[in-house]
Amino acid sequence: MKEFQGKDYLLHSDFALGLYEEFAKDAPIFDFHCHLNPRQIYEDHHFSSITEAWLGKDGAGDHYKWRLLREAGVPEELITGKADDHERFLAFAKAMPSFLGNPIYEWTHLELKRFFDCDLPINGQNVEIIWNHCNEVLKTLTARKMIEKSNVSMLFTTDDPADDLHYHDLIAQDASFKTKVLPCWRPDRFLHILNGDIFRKAIGELSARLERPIDTFDALLEALHDRLDFFKAKGAVATDHGLDTLRFSHIDKDAASKAFDKALAGENLTEAEADDYESYLLLSLGKEYKRLGFVQQYHIGAIRNNTEVGYKAHGVDFGYDACGDRNIAEILAKLLSKLEAEDALPPTILYCLNEKDYGSMVTLMNVFQGKGRGYLQLGAAWWFNDHYDGIRKQIRVLMAGGLISCFVGMLTDSRSFLSYPRHEYFRRLLVDEIALLVEEGRYPNDRAMLGKVIEDICYNNAIEFFLGK
Amino acid sequence: MKEFQGKDYLLHSDFALGLYEEFAKDAPIFDFHCHLNPRQIYEDHHFSSITEAWLGKDGAGDHYKWRLLREAGVPEELITGKADDHERFLAFAKAMPSFLGNPIYEWTHLELKRFFDCDLPINGQNVEIIWNHCNEVLKTLTARKMIEKSNVSMLFTTDDPADDLHYHDLIAQDASFKTKVLPCWRPDRFLHILNGDIFRKAIGELSARLERPIDTFDALLEALHDRLDFFKAKGAVATDHGLDTLRFSHIDKDAASKAFDKALAGENLTEAEADDYESYLLLSLGKEYKRLGFVQQYHIGAIRNNTEVGYKAHGVDFGYDACGDRNIAEILAKLLSKLEAEDALPPTILYCLNEKDYGSMVTLMNVFQGKGRGYLQLGAAWWFNDHYDGIRKQIRVLMAGGLISCFVGMLTDSRSFLSYPRHEYFRRLLVDEIALLVEEGRYPNDRAMLGKVIEDICYNNAIEFFLGK
Amino acid sequence: MKEFQGKDYLLHSDFALGLYEEFAKDAPIFDFHCHLNPRQIYEDHHFSSITEAWLGKDGAGDHYKWRLLREAGVPEELITGKADDHERFLAFAKAMPSFLGNPIYEWTHLELKRFFDCDLPINGQNVEIIWNHCNEVLKTLTARKMIEKSNVSMLFTTDDPADDLHYHDLIAQDASFKTKVLPCWRPDRFLHILNGDIFRKAIGELSARLERPIDTFDALLEALHDRLDFFKAKGAVATDHGLDTLRFSHIDKDAASKAFDKALAGENLTEAEADDYESYLLLSLGKEYKRLGFVQQYHIGAIRNNTEVGYKAHGVDFGYDACGDRNIAEILAKLLSKLEAEDALPPTILYCLNEKDYGSMVTLMNVFQGKGRGYLQLGAAWWFNDHYDGIRKQIRVLMAGGLISCFVGMLTDSRSFLSYPRHEYFRRLLVDEIALLVEEGRYPNDRAMLGKVIEDICYNNAIEFFLGK
Repeated sequence: MKEFQGKDYLLHSDFALGLYEEFAKDAPIFDFHCHLNPRQIYEDHHFSSITEAWLGKDGAGDHYKWRLLREAGVPEELITGKADDHERFLAFAKAMPSFLGNPIYEWTHLELKRFFDCDLPINGQNVEIIWNHCNEVLKTLTARKMIEKSNVSMLFTTDDPADDLHYHDLIAQDASFKTKVLPCWRPDRFLHILNGDIFRKAIGELSARLERPIDTFDALLEALHDRLDFFKAKGAVATDHGLDTLRFSHIDKDAASKAFDKALAGENLTEAEADDYESYLLLSLGKEYKRLGFVQQYHIGAIRNNTEVGYKAHGVDFGYDACGDRNIAEILAKLLSKLEAEDALPPTILYCLNEKDYGSMVTLMNVFQGKGRGYLQLGAAWWFNDHYDGIRKQIRVLMAGGLISCFVGMLTDSRSFLSYPRHEYFRRLLVDEIALLVEEGRYPNDRAMLGKVIEDICYNNAIEFFLGK
Repeated sequence: MKEFQGKDYLLHSDFALGLYEEFAKDAPIFDFHCHLNPRQIYEDHHFSSITEAWLGKDGAGDHYKWRLLREAGVPEELITGKADDHERFLAFAKAMPSFLGNPIYEWTHLELKRFFDCDLPINGQNVEIIWNHCNEVLKTLTARKMIEKSNVSMLFTTDDPADDLHYHDLIAQDASFKTKVLPCWRPDRFLHILNGDIFRKAIGELSARLERPIDTFDALLEALHDRLDFFKAKGAVATDHGLDTLRFSHIDKDAASKAFDKALAGENLTEAEADDYESYLLLSLGKEYKRLGFVQQYHIGAIRNNTEVGYKAHGVDFGYDACGDRNIAEILAKLLSKLEAEDALPPTILYCLNEKDYGSMVTLMNVFQGKGRGYLQLGAAWWFNDHYDGIRKQIRVLMAGGLISCFVGMLTDSRSFLSYPRHEYFRRLLVDEIALLVEEGRYPNDRAMLGKVIEDICYNNAIEFFLGK
Repeated sequence: MKEFQGKDYLLHSDFALGLYEEFAKDAPIFDFHCHLNPRQIYEDHHFSSITEAWLGKDGAGDHYKWRLLREAGVPEELITGKADDHERFLAFAKAMPSFLGNPIYEWTHLELKRFFDCDLPINGQNVEIIWNHCNEVLKTLTARKMIEKSNVSMLFTTDDPADDLHYHDLIAQDASFKTKVLPCWRPDRFLHILNGDIFRKAIGELSARLERPIDTFDALLEALHDRLDFFKAKGAVATDHGLDTLRFSHIDKDAASKAFDKALAGENLTEAEADDYESYLLLSLGKEYKRLGFVQQYHIGAIRNNTEVGYKAHGVDFGYDACGDRNIAEILAKLLSKLEAEDALPPTILYCLNEKDYGSMVTLMNVFQGKGRGYLQLGAAWWFNDHYDGIRKQIRVLMAGGLISCFVGMLTDSRSFLSYPRHEYFRRLLVDEIALLVEEGRYPNDRAMLGKVIEDICYNNAIEFFLGK
């Protein structure tokens, strides 16, 4: 029987363990997509308690955990509500044993081990010891220390085009912090034209930032292109897009422009008008990304804010999102083909939220290769999928349909400074899958090559993909 | 090499076997959804032969088995036709070895072991011994004895709103039968307005039952609400819906009412009109269920009676159904959101027939939690999926996306009194999956907690979910 | 640790190995669907180098491999371009270690072992030895020798209705070649009416072949029926259809006829008109197949030529196809039902490209059984899916939803004379899955029956299915 999260955790053989320890365990982390707060990084945020670190505060925090607590029957008061941190932690710890099998169980304990050096299972018996111990550690374990302790050499945050990147400037000027922190361009608010008020607010903020009116589609394009140059000047090399509904119909600038005018005037748009608008904007942005040497990421298929009651009460990022199931293959094919034809296809990572889309994505991706090693990528298991089976599935789909050896690997996609052990989780599964190939007679026991592949996926491929060689 | 269906059947380790024997094997069964015939329960049905028990008679019976026999090349005469029971059993037994890998092979042999205490493989050599032995046993092994031998503490049948529940009354009055048998409300005939004749027949029968006209949509709603009160008075606490095509557009009572009028007048309805009607009716029923403390079950995604030739010749439930593949995520999201907003969302179990829907279902389910422990449930692998891989898949999806510890577990969904060993089949796989978590270092070897989780899923959670604590 | 592709390759136990060696290893191959060139078979093609054999020449060849080379960053010049064979092989061999986990890695090495008796891993170190060795072997290892060495008793090529089958005649007359080679009817060009120019070209060629005008839909139907008789006279018993978009709406000959007239006149057709046309043609062909005793194969769900840039530069079969994701269940149900109702449903194999379709396909297939043993078949894992996980998945889906014992098994679907070891790959996985059933206690250790099932799937079932008993 294995020890809980012992050194051979998730590794089914000594061979796998040996590969992990030699090639994966100590590789640095390049977290090329996360939602960490640059201000908290700059200010080296100090957490008032383990509750803040794990569950968040003031209604912001880890909605992964909130959803499970709700399912477990814990009252909202004790999840995101006004109960004090100790009470909330008590509820969380008592519910934890019932998280058996869920990644939150494994991640939370791995965080407890790696950051707090504590091997106790979280439960009603151990709750007070853990509460006191973690809070003691948190007196000195600040945001930056969490990042450094995790051996993170570089991370990209997620930033709006209207953002002034002020905290990125400050971080860059602070020589005491060794991890490189760069902004990543995320223009979602400008793409999602059907979100009327949010869209108009974004336009307003961008206009204010640039101190000039944005009252035509051309003005918007110019504004976004200017901001891209600004991001480039601040060191950015990556972009990211939440394409909840993947939209692409055809390229018609007049139609896109009309849709923009209607949206700005507060009128309701049809789905077809949103398609017109988003098609053109994705093309226009793709051209700029290509010109600037930026990488492009597409996160496809979330459906958000699904509860009317909850959304009205609590807004976004409160645990109300889910996995959509629209058909995407033919739209994605057309979009990628048009981007390629217009010299607007930069190196791109495609992420899907619904497992059913892997087959189409990995086969489509390889239609458009030939522009450099691993030019198109199947993104790591994302959001609801970055668990034991989900990570294995993405790895196996990529192996079967493409080249795992070119894969840029894991990212946290997280709001939490404590989530870096997800890289460890991923690496253990990755190494286990690679070891299995050898153990089933599917690949020679060529240790140098196996080691190179593992090290590349853990770190080198991402560096090459985002920064060039 | 393991013994065929020996004591460690499906259990890959001694650890798993130990958990199974200590916590799962002897737990009682609460079969909260099946299609057993209340009259046969009351009359303590005596089976004329093992053929009747396994293959049915007079064109009614286990169409799972029929489909395989057809695939194996057995003539219909020997499956559902006029051949005598001995000939039909001969054909079945001879075909059985070719069922290798199919759940019917495993279930049938498990039934032979558990009910008839016979370890022989079913095949052409053993057929006469098995025929004689089983028929001898069936002289005393009646319907009720099958249920009692299976340690079933409670079961819910499936009942139409127009049913008088006469046999439920009789069973309830019979103190000699210890298993509690309750009706379960299944209003499918009243929901599926596109099934013109079946729909109108249902309205006619309900009108006759209540001795009053049902000539308006309001009259139908009132009639259904009255029948719900009647079901409640008879002990019912659960409802069930076969939502072959999941429908939800918006709530518009006038539109629903017009659709009803058209259908009653024998006119053809559009898909949109069916959406109007079903949307309103599901909302109206949901409100009543919530008021009455009823549980709601949605079985989503079957496509039925797919062969025009077969359906004309033999009608429904003859093996002509299949797994659909419509997109459901956005419709389900809207439906659940509206039910929640209108205080019409009772505790609900969501079942899908197509594996591709698990991802959307489990993530959507957890958007709407927060109303009590395990308030929304991902239903056990259903119909075409309740086999080795299908059961494991549902368990793993639920673990990864939610809390297996809150799961209400297995049900038979069966027409056969002999199908209770499917609970054993499920429990063995469940325990094996839970044991694997410990053996891979993903959960501590906390035997008390593991035992509690297993016992809860086998029995306690369903009791709590349907009957309250 | 297993030896790389040693004798227990893919077989997890001695029991599995024993079954493989006794029942699967030496079974002959009946390759009932491939794309080998009849002319090359007749002329006993001699390969100028291992590069031609593995990568092709003049822009024709194995686009599986090309896609991976592009992903690996190899310039097109060295893949399909003007570089000489030695340079191209050097690039291929150097990239090969990075194909870890991909089926191309395993297939290529298996081919090296089985045809060239060489155990070296393909890489930069061994490249010159392998280059020289293989080229030496290829001096005598001609196309026919490859087929004979693979123990192929029969194979079906893929042939257009307008083809004169000249090389099939010549092969049939050549008594020195023992493998039976038969044509297989593939009328795709006549079905896909939306491919305007290709469609009209096909009509023109068929008209020329028959030396009579094809200017009405009736004339086309008559022409196709005549050619079917011709194929029958040449020994054909099988048909094959690439139904990239599965189309079926209703049967309306006038509408089909109008669509034909429009297409012939060079007008653009709507999707609905294509549905009209294809629905009628599939029915008409099905009737003929049934009358002639032909088998029907449907390959459903590819999306082709997805890159506009690539397609313009290089045309079809250049690695630009992918896996679609349209919903198919209800269309397939209607199509099969109508074929059955009109006595136009011959024995049929259904192949899907998207894993999400397996559930619908296997359950629908069994709706229409009852016309003979294994009358409808779930086709082996196809194209992008015939890898380790994909083959296992198809086997397990078929076991769980139908009868693996009736399965007609593997085919290469390949353009390469070297791809017969894919049968070995399939057989090893098949036997491993069957062994697992016994080892998990799910089937008795009945060696005679296990052996019969394995032998049947490897060879006998396909013979029975295509040729009758």
